Amino acid sequence: MTYVADGIVCEAPAGRVVGAEAYRAFLGPFAQMLTGADLIAGFGDDQTAVLVYDPHTVLVEHAPTDECFTVSDGKIVHSWLIFDRTPFAAARQKAT
Amino acid sequence: MTYVADGIVCEAPAGRVVGAEAYRAFLGPFAQMLTGADLIAGFGDDQTAVLVYDPHTVLVEHAPTDECFTVSDGKIVHSWLIFDRTPFAAARQKAT
Repeated sequence: MTYVADGIVCEAPAGRVVGAEAYRAFLGPFAQMLTGADLIAGFGDDQTAVLVYDPHTVLVEHAPTDECFTVSDGKIVHSWLIFDRTPFAAARQKAT
Repeated sequence: MTYVADGIVCEAPAGRVVGAEAYRAFLGPFAQMLTGADLIAGFGDDQTAVLVYDPHTVLVEHAPTDECFTVSDGKIVHSWLIFDRTPFAAARQKAT
């Protein structure tokens, strides 16, 4: 969380997540179910970083994801988080 | 379609789309419901191009999308297409 600004705004599939604590609470459960990831592409300049990767989780084996970060004063102030929630919803439904 | 290789492989949320004709048939309906788009970020090198944008469609107003293209001999041979299908499914269900 060293590089996350206190006032980070993350545009996530289910809606906007605002603030470092909310962001940590939002990403925590995902991090816990992560079993690995393959990097697809990474690019960036002084202000923007784009990461495309294929995370593997206990729920969904392939969950291609894009994160597009805006950096200001060395901290991430904004993030677009893009992935398809559909297979996660299906896996959760199957598990219940 | 000038820049699409005959043998393009597109990893789409619902599964793999193989071949230029299948790719055209797959993207056509999306293109038809597009009303606009805002570019979020674009990066690339000799082999890879990443495009992050926020398309606006008649079904869903904001549908953040990532496309990560692999280019060979001037043509797109592979594409990762990443977006959340959830709001489209919800809008379709609502419309029926």
